[in-house]
Amino acid sequence: MDVVAFGEAMLRLTPPDMRRVEQAYNFDLEIGGAELNTSVGLACLGRSVAWVSRLCENPMGRLLLNRVRETGVRTDFVQMVPEGRVGIYFLEQGAAPRPDAVYYDRVGSTMSLTQQGQLDWEKILTGAKWFYLTGITPALSPSCAEAALEALHFAKQKGLSVCLDPNYRAKLWNVEKAASWLQQAIPFVDVLITNPEDAGRFFAFTGATDPESVCRGLLAQYPHLQAVALTTRQTLSVWNNRVTGYCGDRTSFFTSPTYDVEIVDRLGAGDAFASGLLHGLLDNDLQKGLEYGMASAAIKHSIPGDLPWLRLEEIEALRQGSGLKIRR
Amino acid sequence: MDVVAFGEAMLRLTPPDMRRVEQAYNFDLEIGGAELNTSVGLACLGRSVAWVSRLCENPMGRLLLNRVRETGVRTDFVQMVPEGRVGIYFLEQGAAPRPDAVYYDRVGSTMSLTQQGQLDWEKILTGAKWFYLTGITPALSPSCAEAALEALHFAKQKGLSVCLDPNYRAKLWNVEKAASWLQQAIPFVDVLITNPEDAGRFFAFTGATDPESVCRGLLAQYPHLQAVALTTRQTLSVWNNRVTGYCGDRTSFFTSPTYDVEIVDRLGAGDAFASGLLHGLLDNDLQKGLEYGMASAAIKHSIPGDLPWLRLEEIEALRQGSGLKIRR
Amino acid sequence: MDVVAFGEAMLRLTPPDMRRVEQAYNFDLEIGGAELNTSVGLACLGRSVAWVSRLCENPMGRLLLNRVRETGVRTDFVQMVPEGRVGIYFLEQGAAPRPDAVYYDRVGSTMSLTQQGQLDWEKILTGAKWFYLTGITPALSPSCAEAALEALHFAKQKGLSVCLDPNYRAKLWNVEKAASWLQQAIPFVDVLITNPEDAGRFFAFTGATDPESVCRGLLAQYPHLQAVALTTRQTLSVWNNRVTGYCGDRTSFFTSPTYDVEIVDRLGAGDAFASGLLHGLLDNDLQKGLEYGMASAAIKHSIPGDLPWLRLEEIEALRQGSGLKIRR
Amino acid sequence: MDVVAFGEAMLRLTPPDMRRVEQAYNFDLEIGGAELNTSVGLACLGRSVAWVSRLCENPMGRLLLNRVRETGVRTDFVQMVPEGRVGIYFLEQGAAPRPDAVYYDRVGSTMSLTQQGQLDWEKILTGAKWFYLTGITPALSPSCAEAALEALHFAKQKGLSVCLDPNYRAKLWNVEKAASWLQQAIPFVDVLITNPEDAGRFFAFTGATDPESVCRGLLAQYPHLQAVALTTRQTLSVWNNRVTGYCGDRTSFFTSPTYDVEIVDRLGAGDAFASGLLHGLLDNDLQKGLEYGMASAAIKHSIPGDLPWLRLEEIEALRQGSGLKIRR
Amino acid sequence: MDVVAFGEAMLRLTPPDMRRVEQAYNFDLEIGGAELNTSVGLACLGRSVAWVSRLCENPMGRLLLNRVRETGVRTDFVQMVPEGRVGIYFLEQGAAPRPDAVYYDRVGSTMSLTQQGQLDWEKILTGAKWFYLTGITPALSPSCAEAALEALHFAKQKGLSVCLDPNYRAKLWNVEKAASWLQQAIPFVDVLITNPEDAGRFFAFTGATDPESVCRGLLAQYPHLQAVALTTRQTLSVWNNRVTGYCGDRTSFFTSPTYDVEIVDRLGAGDAFASGLLHGLLDNDLQKGLEYGMASAAIKHSIPGDLPWLRLEEIEALRQGSGLKIRR
Amino acid sequence: MDVVAFGEAMLRLTPPDMRRVEQAYNFDLEIGGAELNTSVGLACLGRSVAWVSRLCENPMGRLLLNRVRETGVRTDFVQMVPEGRVGIYFLEQGAAPRPDAVYYDRVGSTMSLTQQGQLDWEKILTGAKWFYLTGITPALSPSCAEAALEALHFAKQKGLSVCLDPNYRAKLWNVEKAASWLQQAIPFVDVLITNPEDAGRFFAFTGATDPESVCRGLLAQYPHLQAVALTTRQTLSVWNNRVTGYCGDRTSFFTSPTYDVEIVDRLGAGDAFASGLLHGLLDNDLQKGLEYGMASAAIKHSIPGDLPWLRLEEIEALRQGSGLKIRR
Repeated sequence: MDVVAFGEAMLRLTPPDMRRVEQAYNFDLEIGGAELNTSVGLACLGRSVAWVSRLCENPMGRLLLNRVRETGVRTDFVQMVPEGRVGIYFLEQGAAPRPDAVYYDRVGSTMSLTQQGQLDWEKILTGAKWFYLTGITPALSPSCAEAALEALHFAKQKGLSVCLDPNYRAKLWNVEKAASWLQQAIPFVDVLITNPEDAGRFFAFTGATDPESVCRGLLAQYPHLQAVALTTRQTLSVWNNRVTGYCGDRTSFFTSPTYDVEIVDRLGAGDAFASGLLHGLLDNDLQKGLEYGMASAAIKHSIPGDLPWLRLEEIEALRQGSGLKIRR
Repeated sequence: MDVVAFGEAMLRLTPPDMRRVEQAYNFDLEIGGAELNTSVGLACLGRSVAWVSRLCENPMGRLLLNRVRETGVRTDFVQMVPEGRVGIYFLEQGAAPRPDAVYYDRVGSTMSLTQQGQLDWEKILTGAKWFYLTGITPALSPSCAEAALEALHFAKQKGLSVCLDPNYRAKLWNVEKAASWLQQAIPFVDVLITNPEDAGRFFAFTGATDPESVCRGLLAQYPHLQAVALTTRQTLSVWNNRVTGYCGDRTSFFTSPTYDVEIVDRLGAGDAFASGLLHGLLDNDLQKGLEYGMASAAIKHSIPGDLPWLRLEEIEALRQGSGLKIRR
Repeated sequence: MDVVAFGEAMLRLTPPDMRRVEQAYNFDLEIGGAELNTSVGLACLGRSVAWVSRLCENPMGRLLLNRVRETGVRTDFVQMVPEGRVGIYFLEQGAAPRPDAVYYDRVGSTMSLTQQGQLDWEKILTGAKWFYLTGITPALSPSCAEAALEALHFAKQKGLSVCLDPNYRAKLWNVEKAASWLQQAIPFVDVLITNPEDAGRFFAFTGATDPESVCRGLLAQYPHLQAVALTTRQTLSVWNNRVTGYCGDRTSFFTSPTYDVEIVDRLGAGDAFASGLLHGLLDNDLQKGLEYGMASAAIKHSIPGDLPWLRLEEIEALRQGSGLKIRR
Repeated sequence: MDVVAFGEAMLRLTPPDMRRVEQAYNFDLEIGGAELNTSVGLACLGRSVAWVSRLCENPMGRLLLNRVRETGVRTDFVQMVPEGRVGIYFLEQGAAPRPDAVYYDRVGSTMSLTQQGQLDWEKILTGAKWFYLTGITPALSPSCAEAALEALHFAKQKGLSVCLDPNYRAKLWNVEKAASWLQQAIPFVDVLITNPEDAGRFFAFTGATDPESVCRGLLAQYPHLQAVALTTRQTLSVWNNRVTGYCGDRTSFFTSPTYDVEIVDRLGAGDAFASGLLHGLLDNDLQKGLEYGMASAAIKHSIPGDLPWLRLEEIEALRQGSGLKIRR
Repeated sequence: MDVVAFGEAMLRLTPPDMRRVEQAYNFDLEIGGAELNTSVGLACLGRSVAWVSRLCENPMGRLLLNRVRETGVRTDFVQMVPEGRVGIYFLEQGAAPRPDAVYYDRVGSTMSLTQQGQLDWEKILTGAKWFYLTGITPALSPSCAEAALEALHFAKQKGLSVCLDPNYRAKLWNVEKAASWLQQAIPFVDVLITNPEDAGRFFAFTGATDPESVCRGLLAQYPHLQAVALTTRQTLSVWNNRVTGYCGDRTSFFTSPTYDVEIVDRLGAGDAFASGLLHGLLDNDLQKGLEYGMASAAIKHSIPGDLPWLRLEEIEALRQGSGLKIRR
Repeated sequence: MDVVAFGEAMLRLTPPDMRRVEQAYNFDLEIGGAELNTSVGLACLGRSVAWVSRLCENPMGRLLLNRVRETGVRTDFVQMVPEGRVGIYFLEQGAAPRPDAVYYDRVGSTMSLTQQGQLDWEKILTGAKWFYLTGITPALSPSCAEAALEALHFAKQKGLSVCLDPNYRAKLWNVEKAASWLQQAIPFVDVLITNPEDAGRFFAFTGATDPESVCRGLLAQYPHLQAVALTTRQTLSVWNNRVTGYCGDRTSFFTSPTYDVEIVDRLGAGDAFASGLLHGLLDNDLQKGLEYGMASAAIKHSIPGDLPWLRLEEIEALRQGSGLKIRR
């Protein structure tokens, strides 16, 4: 297995045609979850990846499991159990000056009930290269926070490299709790994905806020860190953003091309960045990771749903400046 | 107010085109809940009716409240509060030999968190004539069971007549718990809606099981009861059923016409029966109640969703044998 | 031209998925109109046919004209004019015990404003063999009733055979008015399509009411009539009907096979019967007309919309007992 | 009641997915009408508001009434009568360089048949604070023009403040007729909503055309006017507009922030402005009215349909510069 | 692996809402193929199963592969190659008296280009227990017919049991060609699924045509056959069929319950029978196979699409007479 | 007939809501083909036009034929034959930085099987003024390339003017083959539509690449050419392009207004340009052709599907600067 990821996935219900929840007469169904999204991107790029989670054993849980399987992500270690429920979130897609909005209905989800010791990490991680986690998993519940640390512990012990994206969600926990957990987690991390704002509030980093300074500062502050990747986003409008990625290790600092993106679906762009980054890291090529990461993120904005249904050939074409003309 | 009803309503998510949950790519949205359904039927028949409930103050809760308001049912006494969530249920529509199936995702709903003392029954019930309740409300949680008894208590005290439909749901509680609560509730009930099977297991009624015997038996067993209404259903297939209603008080016993129904949506038919029954009871005409009840129930099968979007003129036309020819 | 037909067509708006109008969030759009429906059936069977009408020159009128053209029916003589509007009707599809219902919104339609002298019948009818009309055209307005008589007059004068279906619509006129107009029209008619009930109330026919007696009686009463065709329908339920056709001239009387039909769309079945009947009459074969008429009518019930999208090969296969097994 | 509004509402039929009418196979259904839209916005902002109108008593009329009720707008004074029909309009949504287009099919609507004396204004207006009207109501028919003046007369007499938006529709009447009616109406008006172009052609205002000059000029010309509000719109493209609002009374002149809006649905933006304006006027705070008005108008562009499904908290967040980032 | 199946799958395009192809404005997409359908049923029943096929390496081929993976069927041995195309078929769903109809557009499909030697059967079949094939695979092309024989040859050689369903498709080959290939194939077959009609025309069986006689006759004619399973179908109408299954080996003959089925989707019912039959055969329990097979087939009629999204618990419930009442 | 065009049309299948093919659960159906698209535009502008093609005689072919007929384009000379199939293409609509993509499934289409001598050009072209062809027709197959030359030959012989758009499709043939065929075709051409890039690679034109130089150079190189039209496109993003047209003959050179277009559907814009150009050429007014061509092309971007559902009045309004405000 190239990558193992650990996290929750939910059913996403979106009123079609940009309707508000109050205007809904039906919902489009997608599935999503930060670590799952990254896993799907990796599978699309040709990597073997296992998504580890716990789901409720009912038709909704089976639906979710099946849709993961559809993408080529391995689900061998997903536990189907009777307790809990399948988490749901409602998405309202906006237009300037009204941003997208997410309404969670995930309390009591099976994944949030996860406790230390339930997953056989010894077996799951055997033979795997990278372990991927975001800060959403520990944000789900105190027991999940423990279970996430347990997973990090095993990953290190089994010799995997670890990539972490704090992925702060204000609707799940607060900055204090997030910072506290991240402080416990950072010793296990090899590659950190973050942004200037979070660097300051979670890692007590207080230097300049340009990407290169943040990168260099974090590397200085955490000597065990191998690399730091950052992304920035200009919200020109709700439908048009401008995104750039940055990445540095102890010897180099890279800046990606800047992409102007037309947004079909804003969700999962950051997770798609992680897919491309890990794709490069698996080849021990940080610059490639940055370039594939930003191309993946840019294209994700054009794809409905949270999952990045990427194609390797288009990522490569985009890196080579394939242009915007119709292909026929 | 002619009728006050007290109960939960949920979002109903149905995969369109008879798909299974595992096959869903989108969901049709309806709202439903036993007491709400009956309230809507009453409003369609021209009665003033208030539905009392508690809902989560978020876009999903507001959606639900608005859709109730659309029907003409009064929502003045619905409490919008921050705690809990909006309950959901998934419906899979079947075809012989596979029956319809309901999957609840209602744990932790705002209504299920209801406790005695939260609703101002004194004010709510002032000026009202009938109070309507089903066994689903007490089945939601122990605190709801208490709150339901509280409501019954106030209803009696304020001089309202009370109609109760036990409406047993095996997925919410078991027969023992249901029987125990119903034993506490029955002293407050004026008109009971039931069926031969439930009469036996909930009311320790052990006589013959034909509708008339059951009716007479229950009236004998509970001397304060004014009337008992029963419905029977032959499931010829999933799409075709045959339904009949019966009703008796201490002097008379009535049998409704038998309707062969083609089923667009099976849910809410029993609740629509209660609408028509209460419509007659409001006119102190039990036989009219039975006839409007069964005509309403029969027509409900043809209407998508849980809510009985009846029209008074068609109920009356059906009672008069209007036939099946297209009207143009 | 094999057939010229004269009548109105409307936009039909149907709430999808068997919803009631009050439950509509969108409408499926079809077009329909009795004479148009028959014209489309004839075109599907390979005949050349012109539909004559008047439509409002706006996007809705052009839509309607284009959709007629799509079927292969000739629209050369449809007048596009600025006055009036495009008629609309709303359809609610039912299920036992609730029948289908039609709600007209056709007052002020361009066709209903038609007056004598507006159409160049001399030119339109040149070279044509049959003229087809239903009682809906005269029911639209007094001026339409005159215009319809004018058309009949020209048809006779130009040597066409005339086929008329009274097609009584209680929502458009009453029995007295219909009878009065039909008395004026009947002298122009060669082949009459009717049913036992209408024979009595419109043609003062008072004999036995079995199809053969009605047929013979009408032929006796109107010596210029060449043939009479009748259909009967048993409404077993809203979704299942049983239909039979009958046809007689001065020498023979024919009974069609009886078809049990599963109903996808009830509308236009009678009009499809007329298509098949005229198809046979064009070959001077009344029995063929009856058989093609009833096969067309039976299959029409399975086709969504008013228009009978028939295929000649399936009509012939049905006549030969092709059965109900899937074809693959 | 905080506000009483008087006007027509129609069914709106939009071919989905930006199709033209000629390409329609189905229609999305919304409801809309200038005064109704404003009423809905007020209800969303928490105000009590009654919409007064007349509707045809048929399923289409009931649908419309129910959907109004869904929003929380009071419908107690809507008359359901048998005459007339429910007006319809077709909307074609465009893209540069093709603008949106509206095709009315509202001739003969029940509201357009309204005559003086039919509505019990004495009762309707008792206890109300503001009366709201647009120039569309008088444009419907000469009798409507009289009925609108009658309403204005009663509003003044009952001590309500009056807000009027001329809302000129070239497809309903011409500039001369509009100017004539507005001349009769202006003496009853306390707050006028207009724009520089209309100020010139309807109020014979001939000064400079910048918003402040127009505002001051109108206040000077009509000494009884308390305030004038104006909006301007730059159509950068069909999908992107830039809007600004202005408001002045005899002591102050305010300019709102300018909003760049991405347009999901262009209709009803001006009506939403009136909602927010009245919301402020009810607090005797003109500047607040301007700010809530423009925030409401800006957000309305992002909401499908004519009705402004606003949320008070988002209007306030927008005023405080909440930004375009997704909320999760 | 419990079962290996070899065959083609196609995209299925169905005009929604029972429309004819000529009436289509969009198509519902499903995937299907006889051996695939059976594989999916087996996966739903909890068996490990690999579907072997060849697909075009383009988005349409990847879509098909992914959707197979979604079901839990193993796709490790599906070859993705550049040549050919993804086969398509169009389905028109009928209603009495018009049957369903299938229109193939599968000429030139990648699977039909399959040649002997392309698949590594040695590897594919290692460790597998049953091999499943239908007569559709050899019907695709002469080279496919050879490839199918090659697979049978390997299956026998590797010690697998073989189950074959001739599954005659008149639109793909004729009876002579089918009979010729089946004569070559039958020596490799352990369990034959057929019906009385096919027994006569393909296996030169000429005895009585009742299921038991056919079964016994075939077993007598082919001494190496272990068992024969047959199904019969009464087409009461297009939407209602009555199905029964029969099964015999050299010692016993079993008859299944008869199921009256309401038909949501007719396709794949026979393939679902094979799923259940193999499920029993894997337990060496022919009678269980028959019962699970017929329950699976019966329920399949209620499931949209070709794939039998069965649930083990409902199959068992149906066997135990769970009835048609809604489950809630 | 004003114009005769010769080419293929296909079914176009587009996953709705910007989904990728792998995400499709249904497809929107449109029809399209370069010469057909131009024909439809001409019909919308009021011209008589016949589209000549060959289609498979099955429901899919009939669907395509009917939809062409709907537009008012004449189909009298379309041959319906049993061989071949109806070509299909899949469209994925993109968003920056991912362009639209087309996936052809047109191998073996009936049109691609066309051979010289199958079409009765003598009859087809009698009385026609212009013949229109694109380079797609010869790209379909070698026999089509011959058939296209045959058609050009007849067109010249019968005195028609010929307009050709090379319309290069890299997925159908290569530059060498295209150049070779175009060299054979150019002697028959009166008006050439091209762009600077193609001028170089197909016509060995090697001068400056600005539109005017290209135009003048081609006119110089091919003395029989009457005029050359060119279009240029700036792809500001996938959803916003900027287009300009140019046109020159031996005496004049014209530049059209530049249009900023918001793109609903990118396909068929070039074909719509040809519609407008021919509309002007039919009036012997090259400048009018350029203006109508560019207005048609600009508006086409706003219309879903390949077919340009233009309205003459809006083309004229756009030429006169009608602006972007909603029309109501």
